[in-house]
Amino acid sequence: MPIDPSAAIELTAFKWVPPFARGQVRDLRPRWAMEEQGLDYRLRLLDATRPCPEPYLLEQPWGQVPVLDDGGVTLFESGAILLHLAQKDERLLPADPQRRATATSWLFAAFNSIEPLMFELSTVSIFSRDAEWATLRKPSLMETLGGRLDRLADRLGDAGYLDGEFTVADIAMATVLRVAHRTALVPDRPRLAAYLARCEARPAFQRALADQLAEFDRNEPAAA
Amino acid sequence: MPIDPSAAIELTAFKWVPPFARGQVRDLRPRWAMEEQGLDYRLRLLDATRPCPEPYLLEQPWGQVPVLDDGGVTLFESGAILLHLAQKDERLLPADPQRRATATSWLFAAFNSIEPLMFELSTVSIFSRDAEWATLRKPSLMETLGGRLDRLADRLGDAGYLDGEFTVADIAMATVLRVAHRTALVPDRPRLAAYLARCEARPAFQRALADQLAEFDRNEPAAA
Repeated sequence: MPIDPSAAIELTAFKWVPPFARGQVRDLRPRWAMEEQGLDYRLRLLDATRPCPEPYLLEQPWGQVPVLDDGGVTLFESGAILLHLAQKDERLLPADPQRRATATSWLFAAFNSIEPLMFELSTVSIFSRDAEWATLRKPSLMETLGGRLDRLADRLGDAGYLDGEFTVADIAMATVLRVAHRTALVPDRPRLAAYLARCEARPAFQRALADQLAEFDRNEPAAA
Repeated sequence: MPIDPSAAIELTAFKWVPPFARGQVRDLRPRWAMEEQGLDYRLRLLDATRPCPEPYLLEQPWGQVPVLDDGGVTLFESGAILLHLAQKDERLLPADPQRRATATSWLFAAFNSIEPLMFELSTVSIFSRDAEWATLRKPSLMETLGGRLDRLADRLGDAGYLDGEFTVADIAMATVLRVAHRTALVPDRPRLAAYLARCEARPAFQRALADQLAEFDRNEPAAA
């Protein structure tokens, strides 16, 4: 069990979030990576309430989680944290130059070519769902995002993972695809659905997810 | 002059794009990095017309530029390419562990925390500007993006660059900020405006931009 209060690596996470955000908060990504690697970490739990305390903004400019402190070296942005962790371990980032280049390309693809459309999906479907523009925008967004996921499914083909073997890019891509969990975008594409199921079936993912959810359960406010 | 037809590094770029996209196409990023590094590269020019030829989709799943071939090792996604190039050279990615971690954090921040909102800005202001939803969406998007740029300006403070000294993260962030060039988002924030001007004044940026634009001028179709 990698969560260890005396571990050298510290990860920030939220103490509690509302149900719609559970299993989506981005500390899930480094938790998953460290489970794959068997790296111990301790948690620093933050209130998700706003406004974010000023001192934390010096650690994380947007007031989000996660921040990683690895023996005094600190990073923000889940992509940077994933890359930092993966560089410790060839199981997540292969040493072969082409395989490393491919994994890095897919890592950025998840964050810069798929997730931006997923952010827009969350805006339209959750945060601004009652706005007229959101209703009008949704069909064209679903078409654009669907087209990009078609390309992703084509490139994945029958491979088990983006680069054949599991790498850090799959942690990024699977957690990005999970954002669409209320839609048919992934289920409608059998190769993507099988890929996501394969990623989520990994024991390391299951442990990371269970640990994130357990914390929210533990800190559930008493009913009014 | 790094463009050299016999160079070991090959970069893809578009032969010609319409005026609104000039100076924005993302091969500008690795061009700038290689100018900073004095690394020679050759160009492989592609038609920007759609549909994208199938073989290129095997190199770049979204049919975009750039793709980098570095002596037989290939990468796609401008973020992955920037990181690959920066890892060759401490001038773009410092060796000190904390400075490297900070530069990497800002690199991902540009691609995952600022650029997604810039993509949405381009959708609303250019690609879908005639849609009713785009008109309705624009005010709240400008507010969200503006809030994030306020945070960025706060964190930058009076520093010359994101990490004090210039790094690959500034190539990413400056090219991301340039997407908003038709708006007052950057000019309204004097620290950001000064930062962007400082980045754009670098001779390496100027050469990279001039080289991208010169190619479009050379391949300008004859007037009908």
